[in-house]
Amino acid sequence: MIWRRSKILVTTSSIQIIPIERIQEVEKGADVALLLMESLRKNRQTIKTGDVIVVTHKIISKAEGNVVDLESVSPSSFSIKSGKHLGKDPRLVEVILSQSRRIVKMVKGLIIAETPHGFVCANAGVDQSNVELGKIVLLPRNPDQSARKIRDAMKETLGAEVAVVISDTFGRPWREGQVDVAIGLSGIEPFVDYRGKTDQYGYNLKATVICTADELASAAELCMNKLDRVPAVIIRGYPFKRSEVSARSLARKPSRDLFR
Amino acid sequence: MIWRRSKILVTTSSIQIIPIERIQEVEKGADVALLLMESLRKNRQTIKTGDVIVVTHKIISKAEGNVVDLESVSPSSFSIKSGKHLGKDPRLVEVILSQSRRIVKMVKGLIIAETPHGFVCANAGVDQSNVELGKIVLLPRNPDQSARKIRDAMKETLGAEVAVVISDTFGRPWREGQVDVAIGLSGIEPFVDYRGKTDQYGYNLKATVICTADELASAAELCMNKLDRVPAVIIRGYPFKRSEVSARSLARKPSRDLFR
Repeated sequence: MIWRRSKILVTTSSIQIIPIERIQEVEKGADVALLLMESLRKNRQTIKTGDVIVVTHKIISKAEGNVVDLESVSPSSFSIKSGKHLGKDPRLVEVILSQSRRIVKMVKGLIIAETPHGFVCANAGVDQSNVELGKIVLLPRNPDQSARKIRDAMKETLGAEVAVVISDTFGRPWREGQVDVAIGLSGIEPFVDYRGKTDQYGYNLKATVICTADELASAAELCMNKLDRVPAVIIRGYPFKRSEVSARSLARKPSRDLFR
Repeated sequence: MIWRRSKILVTTSSIQIIPIERIQEVEKGADVALLLMESLRKNRQTIKTGDVIVVTHKIISKAEGNVVDLESVSPSSFSIKSGKHLGKDPRLVEVILSQSRRIVKMVKGLIIAETPHGFVCANAGVDQSNVELGKIVLLPRNPDQSARKIRDAMKETLGAEVAVVISDTFGRPWREGQVDVAIGLSGIEPFVDYRGKTDQYGYNLKATVICTADELASAAELCMNKLDRVPAVIIRGYPFKRSEVSARSLARKPSRDLFR
């Protein structure tokens, strides 16, 4: 068979999702970027300009000391009543409220809340898994800034211009199960906006705006493992646009929210 | 440097997302599996047992003739009134209603509807993009069956045991932008259920069920392009569990739906 070069016009290339493994246990005060780079070195992995690094928020929060000891919490009288009603530890309710600016739903053992960042999720993002028993991990205070720190360190130490996405696992209405989404961003435009573009038939795509930041977080989750400590992955080959947009822009504005 | 094999214990491996390009224009009656295999051959790509093939529903619907000519639609009196109220073509409203079993929201030029499959999405999944002008593409009638046909054909012709995911682009409450989700499945368990499992600290993950089928669809979207005709991708290296679960199981059951 004759190999005809012109026949192998591949315009989009493939994307790789590469787990960063053997990341050390993260203690308060740890430098996450340093831990990631140490693992990369141990794993003989490299990072390249154009990579997207997705990091679960949990190791960020732990490093930043955004962890609460349940023992230290004194629930308010509302948290006690509400905890009894929902079948939840009143101290946990107290912590959830402390991390919320609006309660969306309180029902059947569940609190759906809006965080100060604007994200709507179960328990305002606080979580008891993958942390010492009796402790609760909160969301990072400023996940964009946490992402930025990792990005800057990679640039400085490795010379690689990467983008960083901080992820969390969120449920969603109407569909079973949870998926990973982006809650912190640095160096990446989170949306691909097709509005005003025309398809091959000349149709104007009026409403299509893809939240690729969330898709990157979801893709990364496929390589993570909630039990085996793979809290970060490299996504290589995804051609993103550089930008300094905050992940807060992923939270729907109240004026555009049909389900508020 | 001494290469120490034991030091490179990588337990999770990387995942590849590979676009299947140069898929021919899909006409009514086309065999999608055949078109995909033809493209693979032209692109000198292979498919392997264990691959997940993600296909956008649009080429399935077109092949299955699930396309409506707007000219042929006579809107009901409700569709006329509602179209006027919403600022939508009454014929489009008529088609949306014909594809719905429940209207969730009708507001600001938008109809959020529940399809007979149980999926809640804008316009009951009907879409005017990437089809001849004046035509509307509906969701496949039975996306699981469409997935099954592709899977069976790949098995028979190429000897590869793949899983097939049919995807669509859905908006979601509380977050800006849309992401791709799974609406048809064959040969793959859509959830990874951590309930009852314990993390490294002995904490019992009470509520964590990841919808990896949706994450696979989202990951695939990163390699697709709404304008350049990449309607299918191969996801390689994702270790999924085989199952014959319907994608309808991804639609939240009314009894479990807090936002119904």
